[in-house]
Amino acid sequence: MVTETHFHKELEELKENLLRMASLVEEAIRDAVQSLVKRDSELAQKTFEFEDRINKMEITIDDMCLKLLALRQPMAGDLRFITSAMKIGTDLERMGDLAVNIAERAISLNQEPQLKPYIDIPKMAEITQSMVKDVLDAFVTRDSKLARSVCERDDLVDGLNDQVFRELLTYMMSDPKTVARAVHLMIVARCLERIADHATNIAEDVIFMVDGLVIKHYADLKKEGKEEGK
Amino acid sequence: MVTETHFHKELEELKENLLRMASLVEEAIRDAVQSLVKRDSELAQKTFEFEDRINKMEITIDDMCLKLLALRQPMAGDLRFITSAMKIGTDLERMGDLAVNIAERAISLNQEPQLKPYIDIPKMAEITQSMVKDVLDAFVTRDSKLARSVCERDDLVDGLNDQVFRELLTYMMSDPKTVARAVHLMIVARCLERIADHATNIAEDVIFMVDGLVIKHYADLKKEGKEEGK
Repeated sequence: MVTETHFHKELEELKENLLRMASLVEEAIRDAVQSLVKRDSELAQKTFEFEDRINKMEITIDDMCLKLLALRQPMAGDLRFITSAMKIGTDLERMGDLAVNIAERAISLNQEPQLKPYIDIPKMAEITQSMVKDVLDAFVTRDSKLARSVCERDDLVDGLNDQVFRELLTYMMSDPKTVARAVHLMIVARCLERIADHATNIAEDVIFMVDGLVIKHYADLKKEGKEEGK
Repeated sequence: MVTETHFHKELEELKENLLRMASLVEEAIRDAVQSLVKRDSELAQKTFEFEDRINKMEITIDDMCLKLLALRQPMAGDLRFITSAMKIGTDLERMGDLAVNIAERAISLNQEPQLKPYIDIPKMAEITQSMVKDVLDAFVTRDSKLARSVCERDDLVDGLNDQVFRELLTYMMSDPKTVARAVHLMIVARCLERIADHATNIAEDVIFMVDGLVIKHYADLKKEGKEEGK
């Protein structure tokens, strides 16, 4: 017979799977960026392996959620939690794809002389990894304060991305031979920025789930007040 | 009292909302790219207005789905349909964000002399819009054949993006004054490619929903057979 305890156990299992998937994503990002920093293309291969496991976990999580919805017919808070878990699975899977993009660019870049010392990109990677970790913790513990801190870190990542972008533009304008490598690096930075965006999307959902506030479109309203044309 | 007919009516309403949201996304893409092609920054403003409506629709659709899950407790096919609808709402919202990115770049580009005639970008936009339209049609009519044709068009968009990319690299390498504009255009092309990716993600879900096949990770297996290092 179905019991409350059983349902509770299944929810715990779902949470554990999400946390496990998030730590795979963290590892995938770490190895992709380290393969660039250490000029070690073998490390990039590990990202491809992680992505494979991440993809499989998305399917597992989706199945778990569908079963919970069908068999347990959860209400209110649990319902929102399970549908959010499905969306988070999708976000994590796409972060895995982005880590693979970084690994691919790293492999290309490692075949040529290093354009410049990598300082901002590892910094971006570090913040991004912390965002992935913390946003999942915020989700499973329903901690909207932690989720808010994730949203704040997104501004740091955006700032670093702009900085990397501007710096690389200068390289490209002063020496055409740097163009191809600079573009690869721009894409690496942009992938990290997009991973941070996914984490921020999840953070917004956590805040919405916990505090019932639609922060996403509040952020848009805030943005409208700012100058345009970035 | 809750009746089957009532549930059916609500599902129809959900479908209509999704189709309406998709056509707003199409319009947002069209105006963003036309503002670039016609060098008309006022047209870009319309994209911002569309995005606002798209954001609101995401919330509406999410609410509808949660209510259907809570009150109707749907099983099997309907359950999968409703959870997919929630994910599609998120994908459409992100496509709206990407259209805004294009509009912002168009505004910047329109302030400078035109770098080159725009040929591939409008072509990419046209294919991408057709993908958005068709994938939603495929979803609401459960047409996996149409969904497959959307996946195929993704290759065309990827090919055009690579072409735009290579062409712009040549510009940048031969004349440093073109670098800033070329980067803006690369980002426009990449945004279109990402919109096409979102449409493809939805198409894969439709195929999974209809044919019960995990195409996503089948595609990964296929890719593994190919050469690497893009």
